[in-house]
Amino acid sequence: MMAYSLGEIVERFGGELVGDAGIRVGQVAPLAIAQTGHISFLANPKYRRQLLDTKAGAVILGIAERDSTALPRILSDNPYAYFAKVSALLNPPHVEQPGIHPTAAIDATAVISDSASIGAFTFVGKGARVGEHAVVGAGCHLGDGVEIGGDSLLYPQVVVYHGCIIGKRVILHSGAVVGADGFGLANENGRWLKVPQIGRVIIGDDVEIGANTTVDRGALDDTVIEDGVKLDNQIQIAHNVHVGAHTAMAGCVGVAGSARIGRHCTVGGGAVILGHLEIADRVHVSAGTLITKSIHKSGEYTSVMPFSAHQDWLKNAAHLRHLDKMAEKLVDLERKIDELERNKP
Amino acid sequence: MMAYSLGEIVERFGGELVGDAGIRVGQVAPLAIAQTGHISFLANPKYRRQLLDTKAGAVILGIAERDSTALPRILSDNPYAYFAKVSALLNPPHVEQPGIHPTAAIDATAVISDSASIGAFTFVGKGARVGEHAVVGAGCHLGDGVEIGGDSLLYPQVVVYHGCIIGKRVILHSGAVVGADGFGLANENGRWLKVPQIGRVIIGDDVEIGANTTVDRGALDDTVIEDGVKLDNQIQIAHNVHVGAHTAMAGCVGVAGSARIGRHCTVGGGAVILGHLEIADRVHVSAGTLITKSIHKSGEYTSVMPFSAHQDWLKNAAHLRHLDKMAEKLVDLERKIDELERNKP
Amino acid sequence: MMAYSLGEIVERFGGELVGDAGIRVGQVAPLAIAQTGHISFLANPKYRRQLLDTKAGAVILGIAERDSTALPRILSDNPYAYFAKVSALLNPPHVEQPGIHPTAAIDATAVISDSASIGAFTFVGKGARVGEHAVVGAGCHLGDGVEIGGDSLLYPQVVVYHGCIIGKRVILHSGAVVGADGFGLANENGRWLKVPQIGRVIIGDDVEIGANTTVDRGALDDTVIEDGVKLDNQIQIAHNVHVGAHTAMAGCVGVAGSARIGRHCTVGGGAVILGHLEIADRVHVSAGTLITKSIHKSGEYTSVMPFSAHQDWLKNAAHLRHLDKMAEKLVDLERKIDELERNKP
Repeated sequence: MMAYSLGEIVERFGGELVGDAGIRVGQVAPLAIAQTGHISFLANPKYRRQLLDTKAGAVILGIAERDSTALPRILSDNPYAYFAKVSALLNPPHVEQPGIHPTAAIDATAVISDSASIGAFTFVGKGARVGEHAVVGAGCHLGDGVEIGGDSLLYPQVVVYHGCIIGKRVILHSGAVVGADGFGLANENGRWLKVPQIGRVIIGDDVEIGANTTVDRGALDDTVIEDGVKLDNQIQIAHNVHVGAHTAMAGCVGVAGSARIGRHCTVGGGAVILGHLEIADRVHVSAGTLITKSIHKSGEYTSVMPFSAHQDWLKNAAHLRHLDKMAEKLVDLERKIDELERNKP
Repeated sequence: MMAYSLGEIVERFGGELVGDAGIRVGQVAPLAIAQTGHISFLANPKYRRQLLDTKAGAVILGIAERDSTALPRILSDNPYAYFAKVSALLNPPHVEQPGIHPTAAIDATAVISDSASIGAFTFVGKGARVGEHAVVGAGCHLGDGVEIGGDSLLYPQVVVYHGCIIGKRVILHSGAVVGADGFGLANENGRWLKVPQIGRVIIGDDVEIGANTTVDRGALDDTVIEDGVKLDNQIQIAHNVHVGAHTAMAGCVGVAGSARIGRHCTVGGGAVILGHLEIADRVHVSAGTLITKSIHKSGEYTSVMPFSAHQDWLKNAAHLRHLDKMAEKLVDLERKIDELERNKP
Repeated sequence: MMAYSLGEIVERFGGELVGDAGIRVGQVAPLAIAQTGHISFLANPKYRRQLLDTKAGAVILGIAERDSTALPRILSDNPYAYFAKVSALLNPPHVEQPGIHPTAAIDATAVISDSASIGAFTFVGKGARVGEHAVVGAGCHLGDGVEIGGDSLLYPQVVVYHGCIIGKRVILHSGAVVGADGFGLANENGRWLKVPQIGRVIIGDDVEIGANTTVDRGALDDTVIEDGVKLDNQIQIAHNVHVGAHTAMAGCVGVAGSARIGRHCTVGGGAVILGHLEIADRVHVSAGTLITKSIHKSGEYTSVMPFSAHQDWLKNAAHLRHLDKMAEKLVDLERKIDELERNKP
């Protein structure tokens, strides 16, 4: 386990150090369980109480919290981002030995960088390329012509279909499937004809894609995931979707075909975005929300039915099927009252 | 790249050709990016503007669009289906060489057609059968007794549990799991007892199942997916579900146990169909809709809360927990007004 | 196929036998298709009609159904649990031969019990341990330091990331991914920084996890799935979630980060539970429900918009965006009526 002094950390990442620069920390931990040798953080004032009791060796705080503790502390205007950097310093990624596992099946025409690592039982197709220091875990499948950018990391059992392009420093988690056919069907007399999906998936740099997430190849054009996009687990991105840079989506989101999502958006867990829509930059879709129309203005959007105890729900939900009648009645009553008022003695 | 003349295409697929039968096209493309040598199509009048500017060598149009362009054109009463056929002609499926990859582990009692192809690291269990010209991609798992019909295509890393039967010309995408145990549990004093799932999954001909979709085996009877069904990615089909022929479901749909879904239905993305229901033929379930009761009549069904800007939603949603009180008030007001009206001077 | 007499069954599992103890049954079947040699059951009075017509050799019934048939019958106060036990007796799990498939890649420092079975193309990392009689199917991946408890069963193509701990008698279905990184991101000037996920996943005894379900590793602490939890397919459990013992979740559920779910809960299909919530013991969340706040009291909770024919929905849903105005109007009308009443002649 590496350890760094607070002085070294501040030298590296900036921020203001209050306290002994020689204190050394070797791991991050939450306030409640941190011990000497740990560095912790407070990003949400809600947990300030834990700051009083923590046994951490040092803490990372917002500037306004300068006097909230006597512990050695680093002040930052973005303590959570600061913490992320310190944690990345203390927990460097596992480095794989370069080389190709003897069980891997690599086509003779594939080009694998000498500094890349290919795991056991991994298949690499014709003309595929794996960049410098890239790690392709065990049991992965790279179809013909796939390109994996430098420093990318594929966990075990990722599938990338033929022709798809993955940028640099991309992380793909296990079970992710990139480039399966989009759901392109034409109906002829009640039968579905398959529309060949001849586009690709193009994934930019610094993208992370979660476990069992699927990104379909384009029908005619490509499906595009721009730089810095972060997709959690179990997400479905349909064909020809375009996700703008630095947009993040939580687990179980579904995005239907040809939706065009802006940059710096966030999409909450379980939300669904219908197809052929445009979503502006910096739109935030709440968890569980269904987006059925384009959104042209930045902001937060929601379509959630509030939950309640089942018996209360039963009583209230019954009226949802009769809102139109309720509204009609209201209009009717208004009219009657108007009349009564006009006739007031 | 193959190319066909418009004359050859019309000879093969019918339709009316207007213009030079000798024009050759080698690929399909959308109107906006098509070039000479491409054939494009217009199926939705909304995109008619693009028809004016397209550089496509030829286009496929509905009969009513005969005079919408001077380009060489094929008129069809179903231009999108016609386009699907032309695209399939120009983009024939990749043909795998027959044979078994030397790394595959095939049980001695399995029967693999000489014309079939089995990929690297694929496991085929006891007594399993793979039909003529079937392709089982790399890293697949076929359990004991599995049958894969002729001309079927399993992309890499599909799992088919023991005893399941897959028809002809079926496509299974990567990460699909066919035949895992249904969620059968009996509660005894707060503990869950597993109910053995002894049924199978039976999949008909011409079915396509998307990436990471799961179809569970039956508890006692079989789970059945009839001919021509198309399932997108990330769908969950629970045990003993019966999906009627030519029904299509978009991504992220969940169908609970023993639901019986008719033929020629469509289910929108993210919809959920509860268990032990019957859904008639030609029912269309909107995206994001939860079906809680049987539907006996063809038609479209919806249960979506419309989205709005979060601040507006907050104001409106608060009342959803009080609809019953609102309805009571309405009744009360009606009564009072009746009384006032009766007492009118 | 084994067969047991009703006498042997009652001796083993209790219950009251009415009829010939020597009748032998070799398989379970539903009432509607059971034949001589089958034992069936009635747990839901709704299907009592089928009891009249069944050709089953014997049936398992609730005590109140003693006189509902003349067939040989076993009476139990929990006939479905009784049936589960009889079915488990008649359908014992497939026993794998102990041993390591010659194609498996096992690190020299891994410790595999002599009675365990490791399938083809399976990778076992450094220091991993596989307990007695455990079965790890083909194409699985056990990262460094993973522990698999005795009698556990991993179906093909399960991935367990480094350091995760799986209890005894656990079943993991194909495509399940245990221990992928949680979705931990800090935003700095519009870019997402990855927060290293240094916790593990700890899974208790007697847990079952469905196909393509994902359970993420903790950010700092561990993600914990307690004993006896049952998770269906396509579920997403985010980092630092804690699921209490004997809780069951149906397919497609999503649980966001740091949610703490009690014991003996049930969560219906497609439900979503937001992060940092606490859910008490014995809470039942309806299918398709979104839980946005902590629930401190046992009971059933629901947030479902009832579905209707699309045309009806259109009429009603339009008012959902104007509930606040409707409520205002109601208040206004009440005021006016009060005034009219006060002015009554």
